[in-house]
Amino acid sequence: MKFKPYCRPVHYYETDQMSVVHHSNYIRWMEEARLDWMAQAGISYPALEQAGVLIPVVDVNCSYLVSARYGDTVEILPVLTGYTGVRLCFQYEIRRKDDGVLLATAASTHCFEDKSGTPISMKRHDIGLHNFMFSLAAEEEP
Amino acid sequence: MKFKPYCRPVHYYETDQMSVVHHSNYIRWMEEARLDWMAQAGISYPALEQAGVLIPVVDVNCSYLVSARYGDTVEILPVLTGYTGVRLCFQYEIRRKDDGVLLATAASTHCFEDKSGTPISMKRHDIGLHNFMFSLAAEEEP
Amino acid sequence: MKFKPYCRPVHYYETDQMSVVHHSNYIRWMEEARLDWMAQAGISYPALEQAGVLIPVVDVNCSYLVSARYGDTVEILPVLTGYTGVRLCFQYEIRRKDDGVLLATAASTHCFEDKSGTPISMKRHDIGLHNFMFSLAAEEEP
Amino acid sequence: MKFKPYCRPVHYYETDQMSVVHHSNYIRWMEEARLDWMAQAGISYPALEQAGVLIPVVDVNCSYLVSARYGDTVEILPVLTGYTGVRLCFQYEIRRKDDGVLLATAASTHCFEDKSGTPISMKRHDIGLHNFMFSLAAEEEP
Repeated sequence: MKFKPYCRPVHYYETDQMSVVHHSNYIRWMEEARLDWMAQAGISYPALEQAGVLIPVVDVNCSYLVSARYGDTVEILPVLTGYTGVRLCFQYEIRRKDDGVLLATAASTHCFEDKSGTPISMKRHDIGLHNFMFSLAAEEEP
Repeated sequence: MKFKPYCRPVHYYETDQMSVVHHSNYIRWMEEARLDWMAQAGISYPALEQAGVLIPVVDVNCSYLVSARYGDTVEILPVLTGYTGVRLCFQYEIRRKDDGVLLATAASTHCFEDKSGTPISMKRHDIGLHNFMFSLAAEEEP
Repeated sequence: MKFKPYCRPVHYYETDQMSVVHHSNYIRWMEEARLDWMAQAGISYPALEQAGVLIPVVDVNCSYLVSARYGDTVEILPVLTGYTGVRLCFQYEIRRKDDGVLLATAASTHCFEDKSGTPISMKRHDIGLHNFMFSLAAEEEP
Repeated sequence: MKFKPYCRPVHYYETDQMSVVHHSNYIRWMEEARLDWMAQAGISYPALEQAGVLIPVVDVNCSYLVSARYGDTVEILPVLTGYTGVRLCFQYEIRRKDDGVLLATAASTHCFEDKSGTPISMKRHDIGLHNFMFSLAAEEEP
């Protein structure tokens, strides 16, 4: 499956007094890009939540290479690098759209939980979605 | 009843590239100060929410006089200027703690709702809390 | 001149535990829509800032009618309702794109300042831009 | 040198519709705690910035163990785990103040830069501050 990168302009309120985007916003952009990726894959996160499945973040990291600035549009490509049925891993490249310069690389790990915080095994919860995510992750293998 | 102003330092991530606090954060500070005011009044907002009572914002306004900056501590005094049993009104003065300079004046109106968005009459829901809030608002009358 | 409304999806991190968008984010959306409006008008805010002209917010207000939720796309139409050469006023309608439901109405006032906070008269600073903004505001008069 | 943990309540607007604090806010709390740590060490970040020294984030990571919620106060202890004269490393433990439960562990790396983004060697820029930071990092060695 072919995914389009997620694009969006930098917002003025995302800058700080260093005149660049505050680093915490990249973590928010990763979420925007990840949910856009899910929508492109045909997986409705709102529907999953209504069915009682949350996908919280287990860990996150980001390496900042070049600062995004107000006026830039950023382009983010998430890649599903791992799927085990209980865990999901994404890697991200965040680029400046104009010239393709790599601004940051990042990664996040997620699990499946119900509203009380109990882990969910996607294999048992929804075998169709499980097989689909498994196949998406397999496509990314080198 | 005597309320203490709510104090907190400006956070670096609240600044923008004008090198001052972004104006949207004052709206967030109002909420911090309002919930601190409720706690001082002995009203537990977490307990109210668990009992199914939400207090959403109906309208908000803020006039910006002097910019808050990183390094400042702000001092916010909310005053309950109106209470009808279905609506609450607060006014706010936001000052720089160091020298007392008035940075902004603001106001907000709130209602009571259950989780489905249906209005709640506090008089019928909790007559004790209703009478208490009524008396707090009466104290502020000129 | 004909302006297109500014459209963008609600981001997950903009929600709060009431399961709706936190009210402070509407103030940020107003800024996004206002800067998009300026870009549509051919006025580059980044270029203005580099020329030393800031357009800070003097006051802001917002009335919340219906809550925006994750999954919604919002559509915001700013209208320049006043321009005096030293002040700018905008009004905003924030709608849910799907069905056009009005979520909020809002307004903001702005001035022109240099980086030291000294007011700028746009008439003296840039008569071309002054006349253009004057004409844009005149178009909106009833 | 003995540092006190940085304490602050969770703000309502920091929650999301999972009814827990959105993960991006922990990255902001790390900054709050780090700047508080610097102030405790007698290092004025505002003064450093005015002298033209910025300390941007090079990379950041956070592992989420237990969710912080509205009503919690969090306690964050940054530890300076590395200092080379061009790089600074911090580790963080984020705990719930009430019962000491560990909510998250995190780390960040920083460099020194001037306003144009050119790296600064602290050893050459300010040997006194350099030696002081070196000694602070040495204290933390096992």
